[in-house]
Amino acid sequence: MKDFVIIGNKAVNGGKISLNDLPGSAGRMDVMCRCITSALFISFGMRRDVNIWLILKGEPGPEKIVRFNGETMRSLNPDERSSGSLIQKALLVNASEIEKQSTPGVFVRYGNLEKLLDEFEKEGRPLFYLKEDGTDILEMIQTPESAALLENGVYILGDNQGVFEADEKTIENTGASKISIGPISILSSQCITLILNALDRAADAAGTAGAAPNTPNAESYEE
Amino acid sequence: MKDFVIIGNKAVNGGKISLNDLPGSAGRMDVMCRCITSALFISFGMRRDVNIWLILKGEPGPEKIVRFNGETMRSLNPDERSSGSLIQKALLVNASEIEKQSTPGVFVRYGNLEKLLDEFEKEGRPLFYLKEDGTDILEMIQTPESAALLENGVYILGDNQGVFEADEKTIENTGASKISIGPISILSSQCITLILNALDRAADAAGTAGAAPNTPNAESYEE
Repeated sequence: MKDFVIIGNKAVNGGKISLNDLPGSAGRMDVMCRCITSALFISFGMRRDVNIWLILKGEPGPEKIVRFNGETMRSLNPDERSSGSLIQKALLVNASEIEKQSTPGVFVRYGNLEKLLDEFEKEGRPLFYLKEDGTDILEMIQTPESAALLENGVYILGDNQGVFEADEKTIENTGASKISIGPISILSSQCITLILNALDRAADAAGTAGAAPNTPNAESYEE
Repeated sequence: MKDFVIIGNKAVNGGKISLNDLPGSAGRMDVMCRCITSALFISFGMRRDVNIWLILKGEPGPEKIVRFNGETMRSLNPDERSSGSLIQKALLVNASEIEKQSTPGVFVRYGNLEKLLDEFEKEGRPLFYLKEDGTDILEMIQTPESAALLENGVYILGDNQGVFEADEKTIENTGASKISIGPISILSSQCITLILNALDRAADAAGTAGAAPNTPNAESYEE
Protein backbone atom coordinates (compact mmCIF):
# COMPACT_ATOMS: atom_id res chain seq x y z
CA MET A 1 0.00 0.00 0.00
CA LYS A 2 1.21 3.49 -0.90
CA ASP A 3 -0.26 6.66 0.59
CA PHE A 4 0.14 10.21 -0.67
CA VAL A 5 -0.62 13.15 1.60
CA ILE A 6 -1.00 16.50 -0.18
CA ILE A 7 -1.15 19.75 1.75
CA GLY A 8 -3.66 22.09 0.11
CA ASN A 9 -2.73 25.39 1.71
CA LYS A 10 -5.63 27.35 0.24
CA ALA A 11 -7.93 24.53 -0.82
CA VAL A 12 -11.45 25.25 0.45
CA ASN A 13 -13.04 22.86 2.92
CA GLY A 14 -16.71 23.84 2.82
CA GLY A 15 -19.51 25.12 0.63
CA LYS A 16 -20.21 24.26 -2.97
CA ILE A 17 -17.10 24.60 -5.11
CA SER A 18 -17.38 25.71 -8.74
CA LEU A 19 -16.10 23.12 -11.22
CA ASN A 20 -15.55 25.98 -13.67
CA ASP A 21 -13.16 27.73 -11.28
CA LEU A 22 -11.12 25.07 -9.50
CA PRO A 23 -7.91 27.18 -9.52
CA GLY A 24 -9.60 30.38 -8.30
CA SER A 25 -12.49 30.34 -5.86
CA ALA A 26 -11.83 26.70 -4.87
CA GLY A 27 -8.30 27.62 -3.72
CA ARG A 28 -6.09 25.88 -6.28
CA MET A 29 -8.19 22.74 -6.07
CA ASP A 30 -6.86 22.01 -9.58
CA VAL A 31 -3.54 21.09 -7.95
CA MET A 32 -5.34 18.51 -5.79
CA CYS A 33 -7.19 17.15 -8.82
CA ARG A 34 -4.01 16.65 -10.81
CA CYS A 35 -2.44 14.84 -7.85
CA ILE A 36 -5.40 12.46 -7.72
CA THR A 37 -5.03 11.62 -11.41
CA SER A 38 -1.28 11.06 -11.07
CA ALA A 39 -1.68 8.86 -8.02
CA LEU A 40 -4.54 6.65 -9.20
CA PHE A 41 -4.48 6.35 -12.98
CA ILE A 42 -2.43 4.21 -15.28
CA SER A 43 -3.24 3.36 -18.88
CA PHE A 44 -6.60 1.51 -18.95
CA GLY A 45 -6.67 1.03 -15.24
CA MET A 46 -6.35 2.26 -11.73
CA ARG A 47 -3.76 1.72 -9.03
CA ARG A 48 -5.79 -0.19 -6.49
CA ASP A 49 -3.02 -0.13 -3.86
CA VAL A 50 -2.91 3.67 -3.54
CA ASN A 51 -4.64 6.12 -1.21
CA ILE A 52 -4.41 9.85 -1.64
CA TRP A 53 -5.20 12.15 1.29
CA LEU A 54 -5.95 15.82 0.65
CA ILE A 55 -5.44 18.15 3.61
CA LEU A 56 -7.77 21.04 2.86
CA LYS A 57 -6.46 24.01 4.85
CA GLY A 58 -8.33 26.87 3.18
CA GLU A 59 -11.59 28.69 3.90
CA PRO A 60 -13.94 28.58 5.71
CA GLY A 61 -12.44 26.03 8.16
CA PRO A 62 -12.13 23.88 10.15
CA GLU A 63 -9.69 21.77 8.16
CA LYS A 64 -10.91 18.62 6.46
CA ILE A 65 -9.22 15.56 5.06
CA VAL A 66 -10.60 14.04 1.87
CA ARG A 67 -9.34 10.60 0.96
CA PHE A 68 -9.48 8.95 -2.47
CA ASN A 69 -9.05 5.20 -2.13
CA GLY A 70 -7.89 3.36 -5.25
CA GLU A 71 -9.20 -0.01 -4.08
CA THR A 72 -12.86 0.97 -3.86
CA MET A 73 -12.91 3.92 -6.26
CA ARG A 74 -15.73 4.30 -8.76
CA SER A 75 -17.03 6.99 -11.11
CA LEU A 76 -13.66 8.69 -11.41
CA ASN A 77 -12.17 9.73 -14.71
CA PRO A 78 -8.70 11.23 -15.22
CA ASP A 79 -9.86 14.78 -16.01
CA GLU A 80 -9.70 17.48 -13.34
CA ARG A 81 -13.39 18.18 -13.53
CA SER A 82 -14.16 14.55 -12.67
CA SER A 83 -12.09 14.47 -9.47
CA GLY A 84 -13.23 18.03 -8.69
CA SER A 85 -16.82 16.87 -8.85
CA LEU A 86 -16.13 14.09 -6.32
CA ILE A 87 -14.39 16.57 -4.01
CA GLN A 88 -17.40 18.86 -4.38
CA LYS A 89 -19.69 16.04 -3.24
CA ALA A 90 -17.39 15.19 -0.33
CA LEU A 91 -17.50 18.78 0.90
CA LEU A 92 -21.29 18.76 0.95
CA VAL A 93 -21.35 15.85 3.43
CA ASN A 94 -22.10 16.70 7.07
CA ALA A 95 -18.56 15.97 8.29
CA SER A 96 -17.42 14.71 11.69
CA GLU A 97 -14.16 13.45 13.19
CA ILE A 98 -15.11 10.00 11.92
CA GLU A 99 -14.52 9.36 8.21
CA LYS A 100 -17.69 9.18 6.11
CA GLN A 101 -17.94 7.90 2.54
CA SER A 102 -19.39 10.54 0.21
CA THR A 103 -19.25 8.51 -3.04
CA PRO A 104 -17.70 5.06 -3.67
CA GLY A 105 -14.02 5.34 -2.77
CA VAL A 106 -14.13 8.94 -1.51
CA PHE A 107 -14.10 9.72 2.23
CA VAL A 108 -14.24 12.92 4.26
CA ARG A 109 -13.73 13.94 7.88
CA TYR A 110 -12.48 16.79 10.03
CA GLY A 111 -8.75 16.47 10.66
CA ASN A 112 -5.35 17.92 10.02
CA LEU A 113 -1.83 16.96 9.00
CA GLU A 114 -0.58 16.34 12.54
CA LYS A 115 -3.43 14.00 13.37
CA LEU A 116 -3.07 12.07 10.12
CA LEU A 117 0.68 11.62 10.40
CA ASP A 118 0.23 10.54 14.00
CA GLU A 119 -2.11 7.78 12.82
CA PHE A 120 0.39 6.61 10.21
CA GLU A 121 3.15 6.57 12.80
CA LYS A 122 1.07 4.45 15.15
CA GLU A 123 0.58 1.99 12.29
CA GLY A 124 4.36 1.85 11.92
CA ARG A 125 4.29 3.17 8.37
CA PRO A 126 7.51 4.66 6.97
CA LEU A 127 7.07 8.37 6.18
CA PHE A 128 8.79 10.19 3.34
CA TYR A 129 8.90 13.94 2.82
CA LEU A 130 9.47 15.22 -0.71
CA LYS A 131 12.22 17.80 -0.55
CA GLU A 132 14.82 19.10 -2.99
CA ASP A 133 17.71 18.14 -0.67
CA GLY A 134 16.42 14.62 -0.01
CA THR A 135 17.95 11.34 -1.14
CA ASP A 136 17.27 10.48 -4.76
CA ILE A 137 14.50 7.88 -4.93
CA LEU A 138 16.20 6.17 -7.90
CA GLU A 139 19.25 5.58 -5.71
CA MET A 140 17.12 4.35 -2.83
CA ILE A 141 15.37 1.67 -4.88
CA GLN A 142 18.77 0.07 -5.55
CA THR A 143 18.85 -1.20 -1.95
CA PRO A 144 16.26 -3.92 -1.25
CA GLU A 145 15.72 -2.67 2.33
CA SER A 146 14.99 0.88 1.20
CA ALA A 147 12.86 -0.38 -1.66
CA ALA A 148 10.73 -2.39 0.77
CA LEU A 149 10.17 0.69 2.95
CA LEU A 150 9.31 2.82 -0.09
CA GLU A 151 6.82 0.21 -1.32
CA ASN A 152 4.89 0.64 1.91
CA GLY A 153 5.55 4.38 2.18
CA VAL A 154 3.51 7.41 3.09
CA TYR A 155 4.60 10.32 0.88
CA ILE A 156 4.05 13.89 2.05
CA LEU A 157 3.99 16.71 -0.50
CA GLY A 158 3.16 20.39 -0.53
CA ASP A 159 1.03 22.10 -3.15
CA ASN A 160 1.91 25.08 -5.38
CA GLN A 161 2.85 27.08 -2.27
CA GLY A 162 5.05 24.35 -0.87
CA VAL A 163 5.00 23.46 2.82
CA PHE A 164 4.86 26.26 5.40
CA GLU A 165 7.02 26.32 8.51
CA ALA A 166 4.48 24.96 10.99
CA ASP A 167 3.66 21.98 8.77
CA GLU A 168 7.31 21.38 8.06
CA LYS A 169 7.94 21.21 11.81
CA THR A 170 5.09 18.71 12.16
CA ILE A 171 6.61 16.57 9.41
CA GLU A 172 10.14 16.79 10.82
CA ASN A 173 8.87 15.78 14.27
CA THR A 174 7.77 12.47 12.81
CA GLY A 175 11.31 11.74 11.67
CA ALA A 176 10.17 11.37 8.07
CA SER A 177 13.00 10.65 5.62
CA LYS A 178 13.63 13.29 2.99
CA ILE A 179 13.54 12.04 -0.57
CA SER A 180 13.89 13.81 -3.92
CA ILE A 181 12.87 12.92 -7.44
CA GLY A 182 15.33 14.84 -9.59
CA PRO A 183 17.35 17.99 -10.06
CA ILE A 184 14.48 20.38 -10.84
CA SER A 185 11.57 21.52 -8.71
CA ILE A 186 8.38 20.44 -10.48
CA LEU A 187 4.63 20.20 -9.93
CA SER A 188 3.30 18.06 -7.06
CA SER A 189 1.39 15.87 -9.50
CA GLN A 190 4.56 15.31 -11.53
CA CYS A 191 6.42 14.29 -8.34
CA ILE A 192 3.79 11.63 -7.68
CA THR A 193 4.24 10.23 -11.20
CA LEU A 194 8.00 9.99 -10.62
CA ILE A 195 7.64 8.29 -7.21
CA LEU A 196 5.26 5.70 -8.60
CA ASN A 197 7.51 5.06 -11.59
CA ALA A 198 10.43 4.43 -9.23
CA LEU A 199 8.27 2.00 -7.24
CA ASP A 200 7.13 0.29 -10.45
CA ARG A 201 10.77 -0.13 -11.45
CA ALA A 202 11.68 -1.52 -8.03
CA ALA A 203 8.80 -4.01 -8.09
CA ASP A 204 9.74 -5.04 -11.61
CA ALA A 205 13.36 -5.58 -10.64
CA ALA A 206 12.33 -7.58 -7.57
CA GLY A 207 9.87 -9.65 -9.57
CA THR A 208 6.98 -8.57 -7.37
CA ALA A 209 5.19 -6.58 -10.07
CA GLY A 210 2.02 -7.67 -11.74
CA ALA A 211 -0.59 -7.57 -8.98
CA ALA A 212 -2.81 -6.73 -11.96
CA PRO A 213 -3.95 -3.15 -11.46
CA ASN A 214 -6.57 -3.67 -14.16
CA THR A 215 -9.90 -4.70 -12.72
CA PRO A 216 -13.20 -5.62 -14.36
CA ASN A 217 -14.49 -2.08 -14.29
CA ALA A 218 -11.19 -0.51 -15.33
CA GLU A 219 -12.20 0.05 -18.94
CA SER A 220 -14.33 2.97 -17.85
CA TYR A 221 -11.15 4.73 -16.70
CA GLU A 222 -9.59 4.77 -20.08
CA GLU A 223 -6.60 6.70 -21.23
CA MET B 1 15.01 21.95 -27.90
CA LYS B 2 12.60 19.13 -27.13
CA ASP B 3 9.44 18.48 -29.13
CA PHE B 4 6.50 16.31 -28.15
CA VAL B 5 4.04 15.11 -30.79
CA ILE B 6 0.75 13.76 -29.42
CA ILE B 7 -1.71 11.93 -31.63
CA GLY B 8 -5.26 12.88 -30.65
CA ASN B 9 -7.24 10.14 -32.38
CA LYS B 10 -10.65 11.61 -31.61
CA ALA B 11 -9.70 15.18 -30.70
CA VAL B 12 -11.97 17.58 -32.60
CA ASN B 13 -10.41 20.00 -35.08
CA GLY B 14 -13.17 22.53 -35.67
CA GLY B 15 -16.10 24.33 -34.11
CA LYS B 16 -16.37 25.72 -30.62
CA ILE B 17 -15.37 23.14 -28.03
CA SER B 18 -17.04 23.10 -24.62
CA LEU B 19 -14.63 23.67 -21.74
CA ASN B 20 -17.14 21.86 -19.50
CA ASP B 21 -16.92 18.71 -21.60
CA LEU B 22 -13.31 18.31 -22.76
CA PRO B 23 -13.38 14.48 -22.39
CA GLY B 24 -16.73 14.03 -24.17
CA SER B 25 -17.80 16.23 -27.05
CA ALA B 26 -14.27 17.59 -27.58
CA GLY B 27 -12.97 14.04 -28.21
CA ARG B 28 -10.79 13.39 -25.16
CA MET B 29 -9.26 16.84 -25.42
CA ASP B 30 -8.53 16.47 -21.68
CA VAL B 31 -5.73 14.06 -22.64
CA MET B 32 -4.19 16.78 -24.83
CA CYS B 33 -4.54 19.34 -22.04
CA ARG B 34 -2.76 17.15 -19.50
CA CYS B 35 0.06 16.56 -21.97
CA ILE B 36 0.49 20.32 -22.38
CA THR B 37 0.76 20.82 -18.62
CA SER B 38 3.25 17.97 -18.27
CA ALA B 39 5.39 19.23 -21.14
CA LEU B 40 5.51 22.92 -20.25
CA PHE B 41 5.15 23.40 -16.51
CA ILE B 42 7.64 23.09 -13.71
CA SER B 43 7.30 24.58 -10.23
CA PHE B 44 7.06 28.37 -10.56
CA GLY B 45 8.02 28.35 -14.18
CA MET B 46 7.78 27.08 -17.68
CA ARG B 47 10.05 24.97 -19.83
CA ARG B 48 11.00 27.47 -22.50
CA ASP B 49 12.85 24.90 -24.62
CA VAL B 50 9.82 22.69 -25.26
CA ASN B 51 7.26 22.58 -28.06
CA ILE B 52 4.21 20.39 -27.95
CA TRP B 53 2.37 19.51 -31.16
CA LEU B 54 -1.17 18.17 -31.00
CA ILE B 55 -2.34 16.19 -34.03
CA LEU B 56 -6.12 16.61 -33.96
CA LYS B 57 -7.55 13.72 -35.96
CA GLY B 58 -11.21 13.85 -34.90
CA GLU B 59 -14.32 15.50 -36.32
CA PRO B 60 -15.17 17.35 -38.51
CA GLY B 61 -11.84 17.28 -40.42
CA PRO B 62 -9.55 18.03 -42.10
CA GLU B 63 -6.83 17.32 -39.54
CA LYS B 64 -5.15 20.22 -37.80
CA ILE B 65 -1.95 20.63 -35.85
CA VAL B 66 -1.97 22.90 -32.82
CA ARG B 67 1.41 23.83 -31.40
CA PHE B 68 2.12 25.16 -27.91
CA ASN B 69 5.51 26.84 -27.83
CA GLY B 70 7.15 27.17 -24.40
CA GLU B 71 9.43 29.99 -25.46
CA THR B 72 6.73 32.49 -26.39
CA MET B 73 3.84 31.12 -24.30
CA ARG B 74 1.62 33.50 -22.35
CA SER B 75 -1.70 33.31 -20.53
CA LEU B 76 -1.38 29.61 -19.82
CA ASN B 77 -2.01 28.09 -16.41
CA PRO B 78 -1.50 24.43 -15.48
CA ASP B 79 -5.19 23.53 -15.21
CA GLU B 80 -6.90 21.65 -18.05
CA ARG B 81 -9.48 24.35 -18.55
CA SER B 82 -6.73 26.91 -19.20
CA SER B 83 -5.03 24.94 -21.98
CA GLY B 84 -8.45 23.86 -23.25
CA SER B 85 -9.42 27.50 -23.61
CA LEU B 86 -6.31 28.22 -25.73
CA ILE B 87 -7.06 25.19 -27.92
CA GLN B 88 -10.61 26.47 -28.27
CA LYS B 89 -9.30 29.82 -29.52
CA ALA B 90 -6.89 28.12 -31.92
CA LEU B 91 -9.72 26.12 -33.46
CA LEU B 92 -11.71 29.28 -34.16
CA VAL B 93 -8.91 30.70 -36.34
CA ASN B 94 -9.40 30.51 -40.09
CA ALA B 95 -6.72 27.88 -40.64
CA SER B 96 -4.50 27.29 -43.66
CA GLU B 97 -1.45 25.15 -44.50
CA ILE B 98 0.69 27.95 -43.07
CA GLU B 99 0.92 28.14 -39.28
CA LYS B 100 -0.97 31.07 -37.74
CA GLN B 101 -0.65 32.31 -34.17
CA SER B 102 -4.00 32.28 -32.36
CA THR B 103 -2.79 33.58 -28.96
CA PRO B 104 0.78 34.25 -27.77
CA GLY B 105 2.66 30.95 -28.05
CA VAL B 106 -0.17 28.96 -29.63
CA PHE B 107 -0.18 28.16 -33.35
CA VAL B 108 -2.55 26.32 -35.66
CA ARG B 109 -2.52 25.00 -39.23
CA TYR B 110 -3.88 22.20 -41.38
CA GLY B 111 -1.54 19.23 -41.36
CA ASN B 112 -1.05 15.66 -40.28
CA LEU B 113 1.46 13.36 -38.62
CA GLU B 114 3.24 12.34 -41.82
CA LYS B 115 3.81 15.93 -42.88
CA LEU B 116 5.06 16.98 -39.46
CA LEU B 117 7.47 14.07 -39.07
CA ASP B 118 8.74 14.73 -42.59
CA GLU B 119 9.60 18.29 -41.56
CA PHE B 120 11.44 17.08 -38.47
CA GLU B 121 13.39 14.56 -40.55
CA LYS B 122 14.43 17.28 -43.00
CA GLU B 123 15.74 19.27 -40.06
CA GLY B 124 17.78 16.24 -39.05
CA ARG B 125 16.06 15.90 -35.71
CA PRO B 126 16.29 12.53 -33.90
CA LEU B 127 12.85 10.93 -33.57
CA PHE B 128 11.77 8.77 -30.64
CA TYR B 129 8.63 6.66 -30.46
CA LEU B 130 7.26 5.80 -27.02
CA LYS B 131 6.60 2.10 -26.95
CA GLU B 132 6.48 -0.55 -24.25
CA ASP B 133 9.21 -2.64 -25.93
CA GLY B 134 11.56 0.30 -26.47
CA THR B 135 14.91 0.93 -24.80
CA ASP B 136 14.64 2.30 -21.28
CA ILE B 137 15.32 6.04 -21.35
CA LEU B 138 17.13 5.85 -17.99
CA GLU B 139 19.62 3.43 -19.57
CA MET B 140 19.99 5.63 -22.64
CA ILE B 141 20.95 8.73 -20.69
CA GLN B 142 23.97 6.85 -19.30
CA THR B 143 25.68 7.14 -22.70
CA PRO B 144 26.69 10.73 -23.57
CA GLU B 145 25.98 10.18 -27.30
CA SER B 146 22.44 8.92 -26.65
CA ALA B 147 21.86 11.65 -24.07
CA ALA B 148 22.81 14.30 -26.62
CA LEU B 149 20.34 12.88 -29.15
CA LEU B 150 17.58 12.70 -26.51
CA GLU B 151 18.22 16.31 -25.48
CA ASN B 152 17.39 17.38 -29.02
CA GLY B 153 14.69 14.77 -29.51
CA VAL B 154 11.24 14.69 -31.04
CA TYR B 155 9.02 12.40 -28.95
CA ILE B 156 5.97 10.78 -30.51
CA LEU B 157 3.16 9.53 -28.27
CA GLY B 158 -0.36 8.21 -28.73
CA ASP B 159 -3.35 9.27 -26.67
CA ASN B 160 -5.73 7.11 -24.61
CA GLN B 161 -6.37 4.96 -27.69
CA GLY B 162 -2.69 4.49 -28.45
CA VAL B 163 -1.35 4.68 -32.00
CA PHE B 164 -3.33 3.05 -34.80
CA GLU B 165 -1.69 0.92 -37.49
CA ALA B 166 -1.50 3.55 -40.23
CA ASP B 167 0.16 6.06 -37.93
CA GLU B 168 2.48 3.42 -36.56
CA LYS B 169 3.59 2.65 -40.10
CA THR B 170 4.22 6.36 -40.70
CA ILE B 171 6.34 6.52 -37.56
CA GLU B 172 8.25 3.35 -38.37
CA ASN B 173 8.99 4.63 -41.87
CA THR B 174 10.93 7.50 -40.32
CA GLY B 175 13.23 5.07 -38.54
CA ALA B 176 12.32 6.53 -35.16
CA SER B 177 14.00 4.80 -32.21
CA LYS B 178 11.70 3.08 -29.77
CA ILE B 179 12.07 4.15 -26.17
CA SER B 180 10.24 3.21 -23.00
CA ILE B 181 9.84 4.84 -19.63
CA GLY B 182 9.19 1.95 -17.26
CA PRO B 183 7.56 -1.42 -16.76
CA ILE B 184 3.92 -0.27 -16.69
CA SER B 185 1.79 1.34 -19.39
CA ILE B 186 0.72 4.75 -18.08
CA LEU B 187 -0.99 7.95 -19.24
CA SER B 188 0.55 9.97 -22.09
CA SER B 189 0.95 12.97 -19.80
CA GLN B 190 2.76 10.83 -17.23
CA CYS B 191 5.12 9.55 -19.95
CA ILE B 192 6.06 13.15 -20.80
CA THR B 193 6.87 13.86 -17.14
CA LEU B 194 9.15 10.82 -17.06
CA ILE B 195 10.94 11.72 -20.30
CA LEU B 196 11.60 15.26 -19.11
CA ASN B 197 12.81 14.01 -15.74
CA ALA B 198 15.30 11.72 -17.50
CA LEU B 199 16.50 14.67 -19.59
CA ASP B 200 16.79 16.85 -16.47
CA ARG B 201 18.88 14.15 -14.84
CA ALA B 202 21.09 13.83 -17.93
CA ALA B 203 21.62 17.59 -18.12
CA ASP B 204 22.38 17.72 -14.41
CA ALA B 205 24.92 14.90 -14.71
CA ALA B 206 26.56 16.58 -17.71
CA GLY B 207 26.62 19.94 -15.96
CA THR B 208 24.58 21.54 -18.73
CA ALA B 209 21.49 22.17 -16.58
CA GLY B 210 20.41 25.56 -15.41
CA ALA B 211 19.43 27.38 -18.59
CA ALA B 212 17.08 29.08 -16.14
CA PRO B 213 13.60 28.06 -17.14
CA ASN B 214 12.18 30.78 -14.91
CA THR B 215 11.54 33.99 -16.78
CA PRO B 216 10.23 37.37 -15.64
CA ASN B 217 6.63 36.41 -16.30
CA ALA B 218 6.94 32.95 -14.82
CA GLU B 219 5.38 33.85 -11.51
CA SER B 220 1.99 33.93 -13.15
CA TYR B 221 2.36 30.22 -13.87
CA GLU B 222 2.57 29.22 -10.28
CA GLU B 223 2.29 25.82 -8.81
